[in-house]
Amino acid sequence: MIIDCHGHYTTEPDALTDYRKSQLAGVDNDPNFVPSEADFNCSDDEMRERLEPAQIKLQRERGSDVTIFSPRAVGMGHHLGTAKTSEYWATICNNMVRRACDLYPENFVPVCQLPQYPGVEPKKCVPELKRCVNKMGFIGLNLNPDPSGAMWTDPPITDKWWYPIYETMVELDVPAMLHVSGSCNPNFHHTGSHYLCGDTTVFMQLLMSDLFKEFPTLKFIIPHGGGAVPYHWGRFRGLAQDMGRPTLDELLLNNVYFDTCVYHQAGIDCLLEVIPTKNILFASEMVGAVRGVDPETGFNYDDTKRYIDAADISGEQKAQIFSENAFSVFSRLEQAMSGSN
Amino acid sequence: MIIDCHGHYTTEPDALTDYRKSQLAGVDNDPNFVPSEADFNCSDDEMRERLEPAQIKLQRERGSDVTIFSPRAVGMGHHLGTAKTSEYWATICNNMVRRACDLYPENFVPVCQLPQYPGVEPKKCVPELKRCVNKMGFIGLNLNPDPSGAMWTDPPITDKWWYPIYETMVELDVPAMLHVSGSCNPNFHHTGSHYLCGDTTVFMQLLMSDLFKEFPTLKFIIPHGGGAVPYHWGRFRGLAQDMGRPTLDELLLNNVYFDTCVYHQAGIDCLLEVIPTKNILFASEMVGAVRGVDPETGFNYDDTKRYIDAADISGEQKAQIFSENAFSVFSRLEQAMSGSN
Repeated sequence: MIIDCHGHYTTEPDALTDYRKSQLAGVDNDPNFVPSEADFNCSDDEMRERLEPAQIKLQRERGSDVTIFSPRAVGMGHHLGTAKTSEYWATICNNMVRRACDLYPENFVPVCQLPQYPGVEPKKCVPELKRCVNKMGFIGLNLNPDPSGAMWTDPPITDKWWYPIYETMVELDVPAMLHVSGSCNPNFHHTGSHYLCGDTTVFMQLLMSDLFKEFPTLKFIIPHGGGAVPYHWGRFRGLAQDMGRPTLDELLLNNVYFDTCVYHQAGIDCLLEVIPTKNILFASEMVGAVRGVDPETGFNYDDTKRYIDAADISGEQKAQIFSENAFSVFSRLEQAMSGSN
Repeated sequence: MIIDCHGHYTTEPDALTDYRKSQLAGVDNDPNFVPSEADFNCSDDEMRERLEPAQIKLQRERGSDVTIFSPRAVGMGHHLGTAKTSEYWATICNNMVRRACDLYPENFVPVCQLPQYPGVEPKKCVPELKRCVNKMGFIGLNLNPDPSGAMWTDPPITDKWWYPIYETMVELDVPAMLHVSGSCNPNFHHTGSHYLCGDTTVFMQLLMSDLFKEFPTLKFIIPHGGGAVPYHWGRFRGLAQDMGRPTLDELLLNNVYFDTCVYHQAGIDCLLEVIPTKNILFASEMVGAVRGVDPETGFNYDDTKRYIDAADISGEQKAQIFSENAFSVFSRLEQAMSGSN
């Protein structure tokens, strides 16, 4: 069993992106514009047409079974439009992910985005999170630690500002992937810089905080192999030590997990060597940030299963990474896969 | 011969930090305050007292010969005070580095900071760069790609905004380490997040630009092992490919170098595996970001020579990393070491 814990709906029908464009154009013309969900329509066939030759085909070819599937990350664009458009947009994107999962119940299990907006209290997102989990069988969420789009104007994720989300996550027993979205700062390319910086930054915020004393069962996945963190594991161990903090094991590794979206063998080897196996979840972010074929290997850069297969770890470790850890982090996964949500 | 290309004057006398405090307090009270260099005095003995038991002792113990030595990175604080205080502060810090090098001519070779200030054109820094190199024998500079202190309000380093610095670097044939300073954004811890994010971000900026077509002899060192870059080398190779850019080899590796400030063996092994040996310069950032002893090894985290010694590369490769590459990147190093500057 191979579960990919990090897939986005990057093959959405044109109708969805067109709706978003008209929504943002509406706000440009009139800041009080209220978008209508009724303006959006697309057929199941349109969805199948895009999913079949991409995610579905690649799952089959690469030998993964289930993808934990969420709206396109850069598409969340929490810094765009208004708080109101963000609400409508999150609802529609989450509904579309639910539909994709209904069309391919063997292939996808849903994770939601939230209607975040810079400067707006995260507690406003609680109803959508509850709707997704309680009414639509979602098993987790993507939480954007920087809804301002690389301007980083909201408080760190360890601030009480965010607690209503965490209280709801604990209540529902769902984990969050801490995943930023697009960048409106010309210094940061989104997938080449902002994503990796976001991953690194949230880890350091957690290192300095006692958040997991407040919320011992809270679970976060840091995507893209943890940004710079495993490569600099010694630096982070040393910083924690210099600051008189507990060891990273004790402080973070009951609550923080890393995915395997690292697109070459040496990087994966570094990840597997320094991070305990129990904290690593298989992922490829397919179809996502990097789409080409690596001329050095002849396979897609993001075909991360090959790197795990080739890694010098035991079969039992591989089983943990490929699926067992996903079942323990996503407590609702098993039920969702049995179709009884 | 072992040359550490990344050392900061982190053991400065109290007189220097006191001067800075009074300078910033002066500006707080009166934005037009002009600081006086005359307010700053310290004796050679005060300098020796702090350097001897730290950098000098550690060089001897760890077996490195020469440190390329620059002002404290977080101390640059380009976002603090005013453009005028930044000028005075850069001058004094650079003079102090020169004095430290004069006190220990066998141990240190100087690199300068610039009087950068957010929103102020970098060309204003050219006179100080020329003074340091032409009149005081400095062999390189630290260039802060984000003088706003983690607010990232200035243009990317590939923007023409920065060209006067690059023209001067080419004219003087000196390389720059692209090193950010402190953070005034509570999201970013300076050494645990802002530094690594800065390193990653400048690399992606360079990947998207043709800067080195404009300046074929320009040389940049990306510190802290390149932030997240070597760990995500496949991602960056794939992004360049997806964007229709040349290979990273062709695009960047005649001009971009990485240091070895990565504080554990697995990270160094990853760096050495993916980055060509010719692009790696030995460094420890001693005494710097991480000061403790790693309980897993019994040695200091930042005793990076041990990781290179233990790495599975040839003796010739080690010689390149430990010193040969430094001589080729810092064209003025040999002359500076012979004392004939």
